[in-house]
Amino acid sequence: MYKIGIYGATGKVGSELLKIIHIRKFPYSKIRLFASQKSSGKKLIEDKKEFIIETFYKDSFKEIDIAFFCVSGKWSIQNRQFAEESGCIVIDNSSAFRLFENTPLIVPEINIDSIKKSRFISNPNCTTLIAAIPLWVLHKKYKLKKVIISTYQAASGAGKEGMDELLQAISQYRENRVFKPSKFQYDLAYNIIPHIDDFEINGYTKEEMKVTLEIRKIFNVSDLLISCTAVRIPVLRAHSESITVETELKPDINEIRDLIKNTNGIVLKDDINNNIYPMPITSSDNFDVEVGRIRKSIVFENGIDFFVSGDQLLKGAALNALQIAEKMVERTV
Amino acid sequence: MYKIGIYGATGKVGSELLKIIHIRKFPYSKIRLFASQKSSGKKLIEDKKEFIIETFYKDSFKEIDIAFFCVSGKWSIQNRQFAEESGCIVIDNSSAFRLFENTPLIVPEINIDSIKKSRFISNPNCTTLIAAIPLWVLHKKYKLKKVIISTYQAASGAGKEGMDELLQAISQYRENRVFKPSKFQYDLAYNIIPHIDDFEINGYTKEEMKVTLEIRKIFNVSDLLISCTAVRIPVLRAHSESITVETELKPDINEIRDLIKNTNGIVLKDDINNNIYPMPITSSDNFDVEVGRIRKSIVFENGIDFFVSGDQLLKGAALNALQIAEKMVERTV
Repeated sequence: MYKIGIYGATGKVGSELLKIIHIRKFPYSKIRLFASQKSSGKKLIEDKKEFIIETFYKDSFKEIDIAFFCVSGKWSIQNRQFAEESGCIVIDNSSAFRLFENTPLIVPEINIDSIKKSRFISNPNCTTLIAAIPLWVLHKKYKLKKVIISTYQAASGAGKEGMDELLQAISQYRENRVFKPSKFQYDLAYNIIPHIDDFEINGYTKEEMKVTLEIRKIFNVSDLLISCTAVRIPVLRAHSESITVETELKPDINEIRDLIKNTNGIVLKDDINNNIYPMPITSSDNFDVEVGRIRKSIVFENGIDFFVSGDQLLKGAALNALQIAEKMVERTV
Repeated sequence: MYKIGIYGATGKVGSELLKIIHIRKFPYSKIRLFASQKSSGKKLIEDKKEFIIETFYKDSFKEIDIAFFCVSGKWSIQNRQFAEESGCIVIDNSSAFRLFENTPLIVPEINIDSIKKSRFISNPNCTTLIAAIPLWVLHKKYKLKKVIISTYQAASGAGKEGMDELLQAISQYRENRVFKPSKFQYDLAYNIIPHIDDFEINGYTKEEMKVTLEIRKIFNVSDLLISCTAVRIPVLRAHSESITVETELKPDINEIRDLIKNTNGIVLKDDINNNIYPMPITSSDNFDVEVGRIRKSIVFENGIDFFVSGDQLLKGAALNALQIAEKMVERTV
């Protein structure tokens, strides 16, 4: 039984974590929720239990076995060392350390063994996580040569404030727009924005390059050719991605469908005759990432087009973080 | 001065046509609007003039110089022969004849010369039209080898009913959905649907294969490798597309920007330092297709990623149809 600390408990990922710790019956003796002073004293109810939010203090790490960092990269940088010295396991949702050589970046279904003796683990970016398992299935079987991704990312990628801003923008929508956005660059009501996170010098955004660099690290293929175009769309929850891959070996559609059926973390939604394909409406609130629209690419000799949709707050964040904790706990048993 | 007939005047494309004929001051002596009997007698006001909708009758073609077909493929098939025999020019918005060898498929900025002596011209699919000019610019300069497109298509692709259904779905949205869609396969409120038009045997949809086959015909490159994933999203107007191309020759970003600035029908929206990129919010109601997010692909040795957004009812339908008429009229002067 473990003492858990959720740092950033008022955010969307933090509150999802509290929920799924109970759904998945993670063996805890105590859960403590930390946030900034302004939320201190607030109560969260889960599984009929009451959890009171405390003001964060550094020494709390000494009273915790597993700390989930759900705040910001800056916050993680400020607190990593002290948390590690306090002896607790840390699972960090921020991007701060993901690409550090000595920090494992983990998708439990793919590279759990990369944890080795580390006690500070980075949780990948949400867009990376939604694509990772289906790409891994294809990579193991056919070897990926090129990957081209276009995303359809929900407002929840910008947390609860992102979802609230979308709902507010929609409720205030008029043809001559007056809504002033704060979380997004532009009014997201009936609009899409091909801009998530800052731009890099190469013209890609940080969000797009995260997908490239993180997939390379998770797959341990440093020269994988993979690019992404990340687009915010007016969906509340669940990210979707249109993916085209070129493979070394000749892929077989039926074999891929079987592989997907038999892989944990993803679910086959691929029956076009019955209008079954991945969608936010069906993938939201579910643990598994939906995979469908699988077809032989008409562009590559050996290539596949497919479409995925997954809950960006669950497999795209909180669920993957908890799965890492579950695996680390199993190993210590 | 020409006698114009708009067949299917109550639809979204028909009503846009009536509007832009006046904005672009097309030289007409009379505009007649035709629809089914149930709309007969309704009035449309444009440019302070009143237009009364008539019930369609076949002999009307004899009284018309230029007929815009804005109904359905089935209707076009039923009426093509009689219209041609009546001697009028026909510009057909339906997909019925687009791939027929003896029917020109025209984007005026690209292949106006393909009309030759034809008097029945097909107007391309909206998704084709939004992508066509920027792809043509790249093709002429660097020769396209591969094109991979993922679309973000507005509800207006399904006409006024599509827009109304999205607005209704949004207004009735609850977390446990009860809205029953009729125009789309699923509730489009805060959802996306990777399914537009029927599925083909190869797993692509008809909409997706239209892009492939129509671009090949318009560019007169029968073996161009081009694939599309078409996705309906909760946007009212303007389609966007994320496009990756591989080219034969080495592309140069600054040269591409200059080419786009100097090409009719498209406008450069590519200043990431000032958050300038194509979006539905800015491309809606405008004639030019916006092109931006132009960057060297990190997947192809010679490759470009870019993003486009264009008003699917204007350049994606009514505007292109009218531009064809304008060019045909110029030629007869």
